[in-house]
Amino acid sequence: MTVRLTGRLAQRGDVALGDRCPIDRTLQVIGNRTTLLLLREVFYGAGRFDALVKRVGVTEAVAAQRLRQLVDAGVLTKEPYREPGQRTRHAYALTESGHDLLPVVLSLLQWGDSHTRGGGPAVTHANCGEPVRVEVRCAAGHAVAEDDVVVGSGR
Amino acid sequence: MTVRLTGRLAQRGDVALGDRCPIDRTLQVIGNRTTLLLLREVFYGAGRFDALVKRVGVTEAVAAQRLRQLVDAGVLTKEPYREPGQRTRHAYALTESGHDLLPVVLSLLQWGDSHTRGGGPAVTHANCGEPVRVEVRCAAGHAVAEDDVVVGSGR
Repeated sequence: MTVRLTGRLAQRGDVALGDRCPIDRTLQVIGNRTTLLLLREVFYGAGRFDALVKRVGVTEAVAAQRLRQLVDAGVLTKEPYREPGQRTRHAYALTESGHDLLPVVLSLLQWGDSHTRGGGPAVTHANCGEPVRVEVRCAAGHAVAEDDVVVGSGR
Repeated sequence: MTVRLTGRLAQRGDVALGDRCPIDRTLQVIGNRTTLLLLREVFYGAGRFDALVKRVGVTEAVAAQRLRQLVDAGVLTKEPYREPGQRTRHAYALTESGHDLLPVVLSLLQWGDSHTRGGGPAVTHANCGEPVRVEVRCAAGHAVAEDDVVVGSGR
């Protein structure tokens, strides 16, 4: 039981995909724990640098480096802000491409909630109160089982 | 425009969530690029150690360490196999909890396809040929916009 590969992908033998693989290209931008925790906080509305550092539990230097990478990759924008008596800091917000990471973040949450110990928050739909899930579906609206996912037919 | 927080999550101030956050717990298992590329290959049906090493492009030592972590976390199982004249090697397969990572892997693919340069494979539904997407939906079947995702009401 696996995803089905067709076309060139099925024939690639022992060749690494590297930049030809969109999964790998995504991971080159967000493929580490600290980056994803920073994104979690921005999704939660805590985009100020000081809050990010505390809530993610990293040093200022690491946070600054990861945030710079996310800005460079077009995932976040940054805006200066200043509180009385403090020096200028930056607050981060998601770009349109950053918002498109919601299924990544929610699928991580969903898996951790189901398969690790410790529970988690309820995730519900504001309009109807029903639980929110990340689902694999096709454009025709069918729920798609793993066996029926076909990857790699030419495009 | 962000996810809405309610309950304790909205009030946590500057406290890091750590093991209380299912996103973080997931990242402690799969939160690095090499691990996710190994999982990609197992989803693609290439679970033999030698193939994993070549297709992910890492050293045998790194691959062995990451695979051991995934077995310990219950995401993969391993089985010995042996080809004539070779020493015994292992092949890896997804457990039930491993299969549940499909939305994570597909959401990474989807984002990279949409937001990084280089294209990617078509992902389609075997039964009807329509494109496959990872969608955020509630149990009532509604497509849920980011603004309408409520995280953290008590459970």
